[in-house]
Amino acid sequence: MNRNEITEQIVVARLAKGLSWRQLADAIDRPVVWTTAALLGQHPIPAELGKVLVDLLGLDDAVIPLLAAPPMRGGLPTAVPTDPTIYRFYEALQVYGPAIKELIHEQFGDGIMSAINFSVDVQKKPHPSGDRIVVTFDGKFLPYDWV
Amino acid sequence: MNRNEITEQIVVARLAKGLSWRQLADAIDRPVVWTTAALLGQHPIPAELGKVLVDLLGLDDAVIPLLAAPPMRGGLPTAVPTDPTIYRFYEALQVYGPAIKELIHEQFGDGIMSAINFSVDVQKKPHPSGDRIVVTFDGKFLPYDWV
Amino acid sequence: MNRNEITEQIVVARLAKGLSWRQLADAIDRPVVWTTAALLGQHPIPAELGKVLVDLLGLDDAVIPLLAAPPMRGGLPTAVPTDPTIYRFYEALQVYGPAIKELIHEQFGDGIMSAINFSVDVQKKPHPSGDRIVVTFDGKFLPYDWV
Amino acid sequence: MNRNEITEQIVVARLAKGLSWRQLADAIDRPVVWTTAALLGQHPIPAELGKVLVDLLGLDDAVIPLLAAPPMRGGLPTAVPTDPTIYRFYEALQVYGPAIKELIHEQFGDGIMSAINFSVDVQKKPHPSGDRIVVTFDGKFLPYDWV
Amino acid sequence: MNRNEITEQIVVARLAKGLSWRQLADAIDRPVVWTTAALLGQHPIPAELGKVLVDLLGLDDAVIPLLAAPPMRGGLPTAVPTDPTIYRFYEALQVYGPAIKELIHEQFGDGIMSAINFSVDVQKKPHPSGDRIVVTFDGKFLPYDWV
Amino acid sequence: MNRNEITEQIVVARLAKGLSWRQLADAIDRPVVWTTAALLGQHPIPAELGKVLVDLLGLDDAVIPLLAAPPMRGGLPTAVPTDPTIYRFYEALQVYGPAIKELIHEQFGDGIMSAINFSVDVQKKPHPSGDRIVVTFDGKFLPYDWV
Amino acid sequence: MNRNEITEQIVVARLAKGLSWRQLADAIDRPVVWTTAALLGQHPIPAELGKVLVDLLGLDDAVIPLLAAPPMRGGLPTAVPTDPTIYRFYEALQVYGPAIKELIHEQFGDGIMSAINFSVDVQKKPHPSGDRIVVTFDGKFLPYDWV
Amino acid sequence: MNRNEITEQIVVARLAKGLSWRQLADAIDRPVVWTTAALLGQHPIPAELGKVLVDLLGLDDAVIPLLAAPPMRGGLPTAVPTDPTIYRFYEALQVYGPAIKELIHEQFGDGIMSAINFSVDVQKKPHPSGDRIVVTFDGKFLPYDWV
Amino acid sequence: MNRNEITEQIVVARLAKGLSWRQLADAIDRPVVWTTAALLGQHPIPAELGKVLVDLLGLDDAVIPLLAAPPMRGGLPTAVPTDPTIYRFYEALQVYGPAIKELIHEQFGDGIMSAINFSVDVQKKPHPSGDRIVVTFDGKFLPYDWV
Amino acid sequence: MNRNEITEQIVVARLAKGLSWRQLADAIDRPVVWTTAALLGQHPIPAELGKVLVDLLGLDDAVIPLLAAPPMRGGLPTAVPTDPTIYRFYEALQVYGPAIKELIHEQFGDGIMSAINFSVDVQKKPHPSGDRIVVTFDGKFLPYDWV
Repeated sequence: MNRNEITEQIVVARLAKGLSWRQLADAIDRPVVWTTAALLGQHPIPAELGKVLVDLLGLDDAVIPLLAAPPMRGGLPTAVPTDPTIYRFYEALQVYGPAIKELIHEQFGDGIMSAINFSVDVQKKPHPSGDRIVVTFDGKFLPYDWV
Repeated sequence: MNRNEITEQIVVARLAKGLSWRQLADAIDRPVVWTTAALLGQHPIPAELGKVLVDLLGLDDAVIPLLAAPPMRGGLPTAVPTDPTIYRFYEALQVYGPAIKELIHEQFGDGIMSAINFSVDVQKKPHPSGDRIVVTFDGKFLPYDWV
Repeated sequence: MNRNEITEQIVVARLAKGLSWRQLADAIDRPVVWTTAALLGQHPIPAELGKVLVDLLGLDDAVIPLLAAPPMRGGLPTAVPTDPTIYRFYEALQVYGPAIKELIHEQFGDGIMSAINFSVDVQKKPHPSGDRIVVTFDGKFLPYDWV
Repeated sequence: MNRNEITEQIVVARLAKGLSWRQLADAIDRPVVWTTAALLGQHPIPAELGKVLVDLLGLDDAVIPLLAAPPMRGGLPTAVPTDPTIYRFYEALQVYGPAIKELIHEQFGDGIMSAINFSVDVQKKPHPSGDRIVVTFDGKFLPYDWV
Repeated sequence: MNRNEITEQIVVARLAKGLSWRQLADAIDRPVVWTTAALLGQHPIPAELGKVLVDLLGLDDAVIPLLAAPPMRGGLPTAVPTDPTIYRFYEALQVYGPAIKELIHEQFGDGIMSAINFSVDVQKKPHPSGDRIVVTFDGKFLPYDWV
Repeated sequence: MNRNEITEQIVVARLAKGLSWRQLADAIDRPVVWTTAALLGQHPIPAELGKVLVDLLGLDDAVIPLLAAPPMRGGLPTAVPTDPTIYRFYEALQVYGPAIKELIHEQFGDGIMSAINFSVDVQKKPHPSGDRIVVTFDGKFLPYDWV
Repeated sequence: MNRNEITEQIVVARLAKGLSWRQLADAIDRPVVWTTAALLGQHPIPAELGKVLVDLLGLDDAVIPLLAAPPMRGGLPTAVPTDPTIYRFYEALQVYGPAIKELIHEQFGDGIMSAINFSVDVQKKPHPSGDRIVVTFDGKFLPYDWV
Repeated sequence: MNRNEITEQIVVARLAKGLSWRQLADAIDRPVVWTTAALLGQHPIPAELGKVLVDLLGLDDAVIPLLAAPPMRGGLPTAVPTDPTIYRFYEALQVYGPAIKELIHEQFGDGIMSAINFSVDVQKKPHPSGDRIVVTFDGKFLPYDWV
Repeated sequence: MNRNEITEQIVVARLAKGLSWRQLADAIDRPVVWTTAALLGQHPIPAELGKVLVDLLGLDDAVIPLLAAPPMRGGLPTAVPTDPTIYRFYEALQVYGPAIKELIHEQFGDGIMSAINFSVDVQKKPHPSGDRIVVTFDGKFLPYDWV
Repeated sequence: MNRNEITEQIVVARLAKGLSWRQLADAIDRPVVWTTAALLGQHPIPAELGKVLVDLLGLDDAVIPLLAAPPMRGGLPTAVPTDPTIYRFYEALQVYGPAIKELIHEQFGDGIMSAINFSVDVQKKPHPSGDRIVVTFDGKFLPYDWV
């Protein structure tokens, strides 16, 4: 039993029980993107929250300490994603990545957007010509700093 | 002379002239992320705007029709980006990509965020513990639709 | 039990029962390319249709909710396909891809053919020197549109 | 001077002269997808047609015999295309490739669609919710035949 | 149970029973290269022949319909083969592939050797300085033909 | 000036002079596949033969010693060939490679077909349903021999 | 003239002038690892420091603004380094990377060592059985923090 | 049962028992980085130490000889690590690797830092603006020496 | 049960029984490098020798015919080896491979060292500054010979 | 002018002047494998030796300091070599690499053969059935040693 196998059990149990990611997030009072990523194996889940989720999903309590350990992260099965919903974000990097880099440097100086001190949000924005998905990456600017 | 060589000339000329991306965008009255991506070779630049930019940058007018043609897109030199500023976005896909996919499906149904009917914004958000970079991907939801 | 394992069960059951893809598609009154792709793990199958297919194939009802969830898409085991029947389409992209791109731009302007608002058709066209396969990709034109 | 360098000259000259691919194809009375692919380096161009095109584009006659030789084919700079307009076709293979394979076998038996005895067509199809691109791959069925 | 697993059973059963590929081919009266490739998972085996082979090898009759379906072809575990016996053919392509291409074009015009209307033969040719392996690829010439 | 650059000059000069590979091979009285491969950079060309070829092609005598040195072999620009005429041979390895290996072992024992003590032949074989290309790989059997 | 070409000029000029990296670092009063990395194209060099270095190396002043711009980072020509001196660090990641990850989590909690708020030091440590190289990576701990 | 499967058992057992890597290292009186790497499958563990660890973790004694054998090393599942905590070290090589190489040569001459006569240390260094992780690679300098 | 699974059983059984490779080689009176390579899946083991080894290792007699068949060779799990002990040989090829090639050509003419008519030896050579490993590759020279 | 370009000049000059590697090595009184590798760009060449070689080859004295600097090593253009003479050594690693590793561990304990304290020799060994190439890798054993 490793973290990948637990993730697979979670995916099946969630669908079998008809639970939404939102319901799971609300049950532990955590943001829904964070909760989903964590249940998909990308974040440790503190044991007390893990207990709630494991009960909801009907899994074995033995998985709780494994859920609580920082996982080996990386959720894409190939370096270039094949799933179209995920690929579009990769494509956006191919088309806009160098421009985003230039503008971060122009507005903030030399440095990066942290992917650790970071949050993601997915919102629906109604629009006359069709609903829009707005995904916000919000990360702390980290200047190159030789300490 | 191909589009890549023109991009290289643009990069050098911009630095030599001390022009900001914002100044270039304002000169043609277009969004700054779009303008930067276009000048880096990712979008066609209509000839009348190309003329303005070419004059500002001191390039040869002969490049205007090449700038106006839809380019072969893709601005990353390797499939997995090596530049840290760009890499963090790739990392975010590794960690949050599958979660974003799940939540798009939960909120919108089966489909994708368009990377074509799409815009990107880079903003500075002041924060007590340090400025934050907020990058917003805003794309039309496209449901899988078998027409 | 994950979606890949269900796909494998479907493949075996279909052959064992001697069902054609056409028969399966007719049973749920959906286009045959769509149905085949869905049964091979590339589209969610609404539960009421999934029930019909699962009964026909003699699978366990427990797979119905998994079939109904949007899958992690991407059906090629390697980035460059090795199967000759599939490879010829990849080869066509190597030989005609850049030309198709140029002509889409010439006829429609800068943009893409949607692979989401999209359908595929496979037809047999009799021809004196041998039957021809006609595969039609029909997708909505999406102009690059910075909204 | 190799074929790639000639292709680059063609791309620049066509834009500088403001010629459409259609005009170039009409000048030699050949289908436009074929002509575009050939000018982009994927097909030999018979010398008498090459002469017409070279004159139109203002290139040196010395390139005519190189244009007339069967080229080393393959027009994608990376195995997985990065340009969105071309990528969507690759994506269609990821999602529908195995289904197309199954249906070719169901309708024709074991074999392939030829990519040699083959033509491609790109058409605009008006549609109430937006013009559609219809790309047709039309290739002779070749049954596996052990001669 | 998928085709790969059946192939593995065939490999083990053949060795355990001490059957040669030639004996298996003779039992179904088919060429030995074809039969071996088919048993290794690269061709469909018609059910009546499959029955004979399955009986000889002592496998379960349930595999017959899977053997009869056109398989997902491609028998090399890595893109560049590591096994020396197979690698030498890949090496021959590295050294002689472009020359073979040139001579096909010189003798036949622009086109390819079909790998579908095709047969392979492996023969032993005695030679004073040591037996020689003669492998013949015999495929129909297919001229590029825009139909 | 390296061997690749000389190969490029040869390719251009041959087409400009309208010489066939056969004519070049006859001029030095060597087999045509060998001569073509050598001129494409895959074999050293003894200086006295190099002199003949260089004169015919109108190249500089300074290239003769470079042509005479054993080259760094390997003529495919990508590990998996993209050119269809060459690819079909790679495909044949994917489909028949493991079978050829098995039959070499069955007929000869454990070992390989040499790609060094080796020749290749390309022939045209008339056939009622269309000319056939017959490519023969003829290599010495080398048994695994621990000396 | 791009940043890579400037780096190449720097490498040649430094050797021709017989300047050590230490001398170059001292001339601008910056740490030697930082200075070396910057001159090798991995950090922007403020114009006033760039002026000093350019004068020392005898380069053209026109490169100063290019040196001052944040570069596209990534200094390894292949994903897995081939140079033995650099490879040993990659090897250390293969052998100790997962252990370092576990111990960072055990001592600090879930998070990473910043490679931005970061410095590197290379020291010589005398040792009876031979001098030792001590390379210290010193980076700020960044806890995963969903802000 | 292979070494990878034993590693997986160790990972699960450690979490289930709530043991820290430090506790495991102290139990066998070995450095903690070494012990962690060894338990993650990167070093042989002498049988007498293996016995202690196996008892602590509640594993079967049969694994002791497998733990004692030098393993096939290499602990990263992909050539470029995807886990952010490990990736930062790879990034440091991309940015500082060539500089470290230059400075090793400048201070020590031509040679490498051994990754065999080598130790790694992970320390916490308090700092006003946040704790720092200090990772020290300490390896013997090995001059290129043609013996 | 395939050859890889048998190799895994051999690895475990050898360690469990405390047998050295030398002891196994002596039991069948074959060179130790050959025996080790064969037991690791790289050579067929004649049935009478296989019987001896299987008895010594306590494996099932059913594996004997599988051990006796020529295996699909290639023992490295990745194209570039990650294990340091094996990697050093790959590194030697990166550093000395082209030089070895040049000297083979200088001393022998155009050709290769056979890896089939070939043996490998591993010896310990005492040396004042530390024991040395001497690995000898001894292969028949094969001149390029167009027969 | 970088080291690769100098290597190319050396290759051409050596052939044009008809110098053997042995003659070049003798001129500087260094082993021939070392000299050849160094001239092919894999080792620094001390300036006094570089002067001798540069004079012999008729190159510009300006290259001497570049030759004297430790180069970025790695002489294979692809990760898996395509040249047959070099490939056979890679193949030997695929077939014998794991066995060599096992025997190094059995004879020396856990550790590696150094590729730094290392020499290579290429010898001709007459043999009744044909001359043999004997390549000896002689490297210091380095035990894993946690200092």
